[in-house]
Amino acid sequence: MKPTLPKGTRDFLPSEVKKRRYIFDTIRSVFESYGYDPIETPVMESLTTLTGKYGDEGDQLLFKVLNNGDYLNKADAKALEEKNSQKLISSISKRGLRYDLTVPFARFVVMHQNEIQFPFKRYQIQQVWRADRPQKGRYQEFYQCDADIVGSDSLMYEAELTAIYDTAFYKLGISVTIKYNNRKILYGITEAAGVADRFRDITVCIDKLDKIGEEGVRKELEKNSIESMAVDVILTLLKVKDINDLILPFESSETGQEGLNETKEFLSYLSSYNSKNSIVFDPTLARGLSYYTGCIFEVVADDIVMGSIGGGGRYADLTGVFGLKGVSGVGVSFGAERIYDVMLELGLFDDISAVSSQVIILTFDKECHSYAFAKANDLRNAGIETEVYPSPVKMKKQMKYANSKGIPNVIIIGDEEMKSGRLTLKDMESGKSDQYSIKEIIEKLGTK
Amino acid sequence: MKPTLPKGTRDFLPSEVKKRRYIFDTIRSVFESYGYDPIETPVMESLTTLTGKYGDEGDQLLFKVLNNGDYLNKADAKALEEKNSQKLISSISKRGLRYDLTVPFARFVVMHQNEIQFPFKRYQIQQVWRADRPQKGRYQEFYQCDADIVGSDSLMYEAELTAIYDTAFYKLGISVTIKYNNRKILYGITEAAGVADRFRDITVCIDKLDKIGEEGVRKELEKNSIESMAVDVILTLLKVKDINDLILPFESSETGQEGLNETKEFLSYLSSYNSKNSIVFDPTLARGLSYYTGCIFEVVADDIVMGSIGGGGRYADLTGVFGLKGVSGVGVSFGAERIYDVMLELGLFDDISAVSSQVIILTFDKECHSYAFAKANDLRNAGIETEVYPSPVKMKKQMKYANSKGIPNVIIIGDEEMKSGRLTLKDMESGKSDQYSIKEIIEKLGTK
Repeated sequence: MKPTLPKGTRDFLPSEVKKRRYIFDTIRSVFESYGYDPIETPVMESLTTLTGKYGDEGDQLLFKVLNNGDYLNKADAKALEEKNSQKLISSISKRGLRYDLTVPFARFVVMHQNEIQFPFKRYQIQQVWRADRPQKGRYQEFYQCDADIVGSDSLMYEAELTAIYDTAFYKLGISVTIKYNNRKILYGITEAAGVADRFRDITVCIDKLDKIGEEGVRKELEKNSIESMAVDVILTLLKVKDINDLILPFESSETGQEGLNETKEFLSYLSSYNSKNSIVFDPTLARGLSYYTGCIFEVVADDIVMGSIGGGGRYADLTGVFGLKGVSGVGVSFGAERIYDVMLELGLFDDISAVSSQVIILTFDKECHSYAFAKANDLRNAGIETEVYPSPVKMKKQMKYANSKGIPNVIIIGDEEMKSGRLTLKDMESGKSDQYSIKEIIEKLGTK
Repeated sequence: MKPTLPKGTRDFLPSEVKKRRYIFDTIRSVFESYGYDPIETPVMESLTTLTGKYGDEGDQLLFKVLNNGDYLNKADAKALEEKNSQKLISSISKRGLRYDLTVPFARFVVMHQNEIQFPFKRYQIQQVWRADRPQKGRYQEFYQCDADIVGSDSLMYEAELTAIYDTAFYKLGISVTIKYNNRKILYGITEAAGVADRFRDITVCIDKLDKIGEEGVRKELEKNSIESMAVDVILTLLKVKDINDLILPFESSETGQEGLNETKEFLSYLSSYNSKNSIVFDPTLARGLSYYTGCIFEVVADDIVMGSIGGGGRYADLTGVFGLKGVSGVGVSFGAERIYDVMLELGLFDDISAVSSQVIILTFDKECHSYAFAKANDLRNAGIETEVYPSPVKMKKQMKYANSKGIPNVIIIGDEEMKSGRLTLKDMESGKSDQYSIKEIIEKLGTK
């Protein structure tokens, strides 16, 4: 039997695990420096929690887990007879795999509302599953890294999340542009154009600007029966670079003015923050997801073309669907898989050591081998990752293993070394070797 | 809609995540100090990979993932008609959730055999899923922490894994007894009793010794039609404390002698190793899993009754089922969930801070609030986890939040502090407060 992996899933080799861990650890340390708390939710959620939260398309992409035991016993007889796959699901499957971290977080907040303090600042770095058609750079199992605050409508948090983006990408070595907009400004634009009743359709069209360009958006809007004069107004206002230029057009749009005021307050916090990356207003930023209600964000890498590597925004009501009303929240997400690809292409992992051990001990005979086993612990206790070759076979074979694993230092122990206690240490890069006491070796390797 | 969790699954609150992370980080650091490399495998494996590897009972406990789309379209018509749940599975589900880390590891080794070096030392800390009936301390979703070496039959690795147990539990603060035995010694005992042809049945009986006691095992063996004289021999030999006392009984058992020799070689490595815990020979240790062929291990906590919190052993052929023959391996597993329970009961988490932020900044007005937003970054850049209360509301409300979150230090900024640059720092435990520059605060909090 030749083993295979399910499509859209991946194994990670040690060198990949270490690079990915570097990304997660960096983002985690930034989250924690701002006082965000980690939570974890189960991989399997009740299907009733997940279904209906991601639109019809999302429901299709949920992975459903078959009930255990004699699941057909309680199956919907009519659906079975009709061979209606869709209709049968709820009677043979009550669990599904997490589709994102936002809905589980909302459920968590509702279920644990008496165990947490509001505003609740949480981060979560876990996998999610989507039955999307796999393609280059898109998998069915992948990580999300989210930070959210619920229970406060302070715009300080919008500024804080911007600073988190700025700091994290700076620490990862990726130069980025952090774009912001406000759904209320988008609404103001539709109001200025006299077509606010079509707000949702229009934002869906605007969301495609990156892909289909201005002319494409014009056609889409016209196809949606937006009058061409209104289209002109919208496309003109989407070119504004300075929010002050929207004050006049928004003269009679209360919501638009609110959006401008929120943006100004958000920016006031950032005025004394020294950002390492560009933070720019982009009125064309729409974010398809309809649950955003205020400020929205998107992050793109400056030195490489790779879609967005982060995004988020404010939602007025996250937990209402689970019975807890009036809890406003704001959050951002890091696109870990794309960040990995960006860093790989930009060579930003070059300093991440893929090497498992700093040193390996090779021996000439059985007695030396036992001696090596004991001595290795002196090195490990001093924080030096140390391997012992499993048996005193031919030195050439042992050397070959050390070489192929790329272990940078080799200690060789023969009779002489055992007697004197001074071990031969070879630097595999320079090829130089000399004899040292364990203490000297610890000093030498510990300071590297 | 009132949200719920699927049975046997759990949310983890921040304080739990931090305690669990401490366990994983400690074990990981020990694995890495011995040169073990991390790998990760997908949560979903092909059902063909998983099925038939865990016995009939295991197959029942696998979570199966429903195929996406119109899954009934390709369903086995006959199985559908018969309402045969078991028979239908393979035609409507091709993926399952990982049941352990061993089988995915075997698959990994076979699929990546040209990308890794043998002996391959890997560790893996990931979740697994089993549709067991949930009960206290037993969940359907839980973590396993495994370290294995494949591609070497050196007994040094048995000693190394023992040292890893010893070091890791020492670092976690749990006093343990590491028990070892060898399946070949068990075989020798059955050979000495003249009933080696019933080896597998007998080990299954012996495995129950802890639960049903000696008399229980006697009854089980007799129920299995083992003659009472043979039972006497077995029960006598299971009482041996010193392996040398088995030399005579094993005079005509080649396998038994091999087991003794392997044990002696394993012990020779440990002779110069200073263990912090007891490492003891236990001939009654059987380990139910039939794939073990040599040395076997089990770890129990000394100061609390809690079953085994670790186990492992050598298997002569792990990857054969996937087409790669002759690869011997040895591995150990840490029972992370039980280790958590042990540490909780022994109060070993008391030093793990459950606090998210070291300091929170409270402010009196809008201007101070913007100032606080900027100043907070000076603290974060110095490695101090810092929160800013989201708005300058009544000081009492802000204080209440700081208190309920258990944040140990509070900085208060009003007009006076902003002008002088000397901020009021309050130690929440002592209640004392004084004014300091940011630099002084960093020095004060950084050295705590």
